[in-house]
Formats: sequence, structure tokens, C-alpha cells
Amino acid sequence: MTTYVHGYSESEARRLRDQAGTLAELLHAGTNYPAGSRVLEVGCGTGGQTVQLLARSPTAHLVSVDVSASSLDHARERVAVELPGRDVQWLQADLFDLPFADAAFDHLFICFVLEHLVDPAAALRSLRRLLRPGGTITVIEGDHGSAFFHPATERAQATIQCLIDLQTAAGGDGLIGRRLQPLLTTAGYDDVLVRPRTVYADQTQPELVEGFTSNTFTAMVSGVRDRAIAAGMIDEAAWDEGIADLRRSADSGGTFHYTFFKGVARRS
Amino acid sequence: MTTYVHGYSESEARRLRDQAGTLAELLHAGTNYPAGSRVLEVGCGTGGQTVQLLARSPTAHLVSVDVSASSLDHARERVAVELPGRDVQWLQADLFDLPFADAAFDHLFICFVLEHLVDPAAALRSLRRLLRPGGTITVIEGDHGSAFFHPATERAQATIQCLIDLQTAAGGDGLIGRRLQPLLTTAGYDDVLVRPRTVYADQTQPELVEGFTSNTFTAMVSGVRDRAIAAGMIDEAAWDEGIADLRRSADSGGTFHYTFFKGVARRS
Repeated sequence: MTTYVHGYSESEARRLRDQAGTLAELLHAGTNYPAGSRVLEVGCGTGGQTVQLLARSPTAHLVSVDVSASSLDHARERVAVELPGRDVQWLQADLFDLPFADAAFDHLFICFVLEHLVDPAAALRSLRRLLRPGGTITVIEGDHGSAFFHPATERAQATIQCLIDLQTAAGGDGLIGRRLQPLLTTAGYDDVLVRPRTVYADQTQPELVEGFTSNTFTAMVSGVRDRAIAAGMIDEAAWDEGIADLRRSADSGGTFHYTFFKGVARRS
Repeated sequence: MTTYVHGYSESEARRLRDQAGTLAELLHAGTNYPAGSRVLEVGCGTGGQTVQLLARSPTAHLVSVDVSASSLDHARERVAVELPGRDVQWLQADLFDLPFADAAFDHLFICFVLEHLVDPAAALRSLRRLLRPGGTITVIEGDHGSAFFHPATERAQATIQCLIDLQTAAGGDGLIGRRLQPLLTTAGYDDVLVRPRTVYADQTQPELVEGFTSNTFTAMVSGVRDRAIAAGMIDEAAWDEGIADLRRSADSGGTFHYTFFKGVARRS
């Protein structure tokens, strides 16, 4: 299928933990599933969103699948530590080949997954059969082209472009957020509603500056340094200058903006 | 000082009317001044925000100034038509040389003005003396670097870049929204709070697509065509292809995103 552009390192696992904590309310507000409802989390990764789903829908029945066995191990451990005693049905599987009957679920949840797929529209179409009529799908994605900041420099922008280009080279789409609405619509879902969920951080919100600007976004871009240089997209000096510039957006007088998109749709 | 990059044509006046109507709630929510408070609108232009201020603060006392006599004529006529009987004190003056005593106002309001100034920080500093201690300033600006859309094309992006570059050449800053927080802070205001106000339009919101994507943003970019070509920034064919691409973001399956920033601060 495709390669997970961010890799599977320990520092990446830590980045995902910081991201999920800082952004939990922004991303998850409005996602609360009723008691007994059957919820499928598609591509749970290391469990960053799984713990949010469990916390916000304490009486729903959650099935979480991922293609990576080691990510599932992380996720299982994370739930055991953060929400001991909470039950999740874990499954290692390819999202294009899930062993569930048609209409087996009331709700699907898929977050930061479509961006890594060669054919996200096909994924959405193939998942649709798992929903009962009237069931909903919730999709959350970022859009790296939504990042802008002060001070603005072309050098910093070039490092972000490396991440976008690596993701494209791996078959994904780092700009997928802006096209969630047409993706869900063409995949056959109804009542599609997509809204931006915006992070804006300046020095009046130091926790958000640290949690998002530094430890989420800049950390994510920094994580592709070696691959970007190895791929000949940028040289070391330009990379280091660009990242230093990007870090200035977290200093006093700096600002940072990023847009996630959250879409909810229904199977009629 | 500087040249108003959008010009003073009739079609520009119409664009500003469409913009103010579509965006009124997004931009003005939260701006309501108490009965009897003395409010100064700095740079009222053709009155697009003036009518909003009057409608939302019906018992405040409004003074609206602009440097352009013809814009003031437009604004006066607009208020007379849309809110007959409502009183505004109109004044033609340079915002750096306003004939008011120190602490003459409870509130300052300045919208889509700083982006056109050579030294917006100096403007904010010079306006500060007009506020009574404890009075507030409200600043609203866009940021043309926040525009992204689907389908994304470099040709469309190039037309937006022409607008940004023309504004820079005229001494302004089309990317000013992202730096409102440091601008207000360094100008000596306290309790600075800046938040994004985001427009996201897709086919599920046809009025917003028409009112904002087409009749506000694309119209604004289209308005600099001749100047961009005359300045040698782009050739006719590239411009027309770029605008055609930009228009596709208003078609079925297209999406458009833009961020305004609204800042409120206090004079201690």
C-alpha cells in the first residue's frame, strides 16, 4: 500500500502522544457515541485517538484495527495504562480487507489515516458497507498547506514542503484536509458536513505554543530531516536554517496557524 | 502614505458590499458597544463595517473617519439608505493626525486598514492616546497567505501572489493577520487577545461559495489583473489560467479556506 511517512520510532510515538493530548478537545468535541453503539476505529495507530474515543463514549463498544502489529501493541499498552479496565477489541488487519459483515457497525471513526493512503476515495467506498443504514462516519485529517506563521520565511516553508513532497512520494497526500468534503461525497456518503478545526497559537497561549507549534508541528517536520536530505530535496544547511526559522514562530512575538478538518457523513 | 491596492472603482465598492454582508456575523460577532460609549471607527472606507457597527451597537456614539472624501461620500450614502435616521459623525482625516483630545474615546475599531499602511505599528501607537484608560481597540485583518483551496494549483496560487506582491510594493502587507498579536503588543496595548475567524466554503454552503469564494476573494484577486500584468509580475495567459483555476474552487467538488484575524486589546 504505502509507507507511513512519519516512521515508527519512540520519538514519533511521543510526538503522537503530545499531539493527541493538546488537540483532544479541538478534534474530538462533538464525537460522543451512545451506549451500546458499535464503533469501529479504522487505523488506530498507537492509540492516541483510541483513548479519546473511550473517554468520550464510555458505554460504546469499540473495535480498533490497525495494519501494524507494533502500533497495536503500543495502543493496547496505552489504554491499559491510561484507562485500565476499559475494553477494546483489537484487530490487526488491512482496512481494505476487514473481516466484518455488512452493516456490522453504527459508527466509523478514522483519523490521520486517509492522508497516508494511495487511494483514500477507494478506502472510504470500501468502508461504507460496514455501516448500517443511518450510521455515521467521522473523518479527521490535517492539511500541511494550511500552516502559516510569523515570522514567515521561505526557508521555513521549504522544510514543510519537504514533508509534503515526501508524503506525496510515499503515495499519500499531506493536503488532504481541504478535499474531505468531495472525497466523502464521491465515496457515496450522504449529509456530508466538513468543518475546519483551527489551531492558532501565540504567546498569550504558551501551552499551545509548546504543545502544538513546538512539540507537534515542528517536531513532525523535524522528523523527516534525514529522509528529506537523503532524497536530495534540500541540503543540510538549508534544512537547519529552515527549522531554526520555523522555531521562531514559537518565540515571543511569533504566531502559528494550522487547520485540521473534521467531516461527518451518513450512510443513507 | 500608501496607495489603496484595490482602487476606488464602482466594482470595488460592490465587492466591499458583498464582503461585508457575507462576513458580517463572522467578523463582528462579539463587537457590541454599550449605550452612550464613544466609538471611533478608523478608516471607514465606503461604510461596509460602519453599518455593522451601527446595527450592533445602536445606542453608541459613532465617529467614522477616512482619508478619502469619495469613500466618505459612499459611506454616508450607504448609511442613509440602509439605516436611515442613524447618526454618524463623519470626518475626513489622516489617521496619523486625528483632531481629537487624548482619551476622547471608549473604543477604537479598525478593520482592513492596517494592511494598507507602511507602518501599522506606528499607526497603532499613535491611536492609543485617543483611548481612555481601560478602553478597548478592536482590529480585524485578513491574511492572503491563509488562502488554500481544492483543486490546488500553482497557477491559481500565482495570481494570489501577485495581489500580495502588489500590496507589498504599495507599502502594505497582505499577510498582516498573522502578526496582529505582536503588533498590538509592541504598540503598547495590554490584554491582547487575537483569534482566527475562518471562512471555509464547500458545495454544502452555496451562499458562502458565491458570497465569499467567488464574489469576495476571487473578485478581489481579479481586481488586480491589469496592474499585475502591467508590472510584469505575470503574463496575460498565465493570469487567465490562474483565475480560471481559482474559480474551480467554487465549482462542485471544490473547497476554499481563508482566515481573518480579530484582535481585541486594552489601554491600561
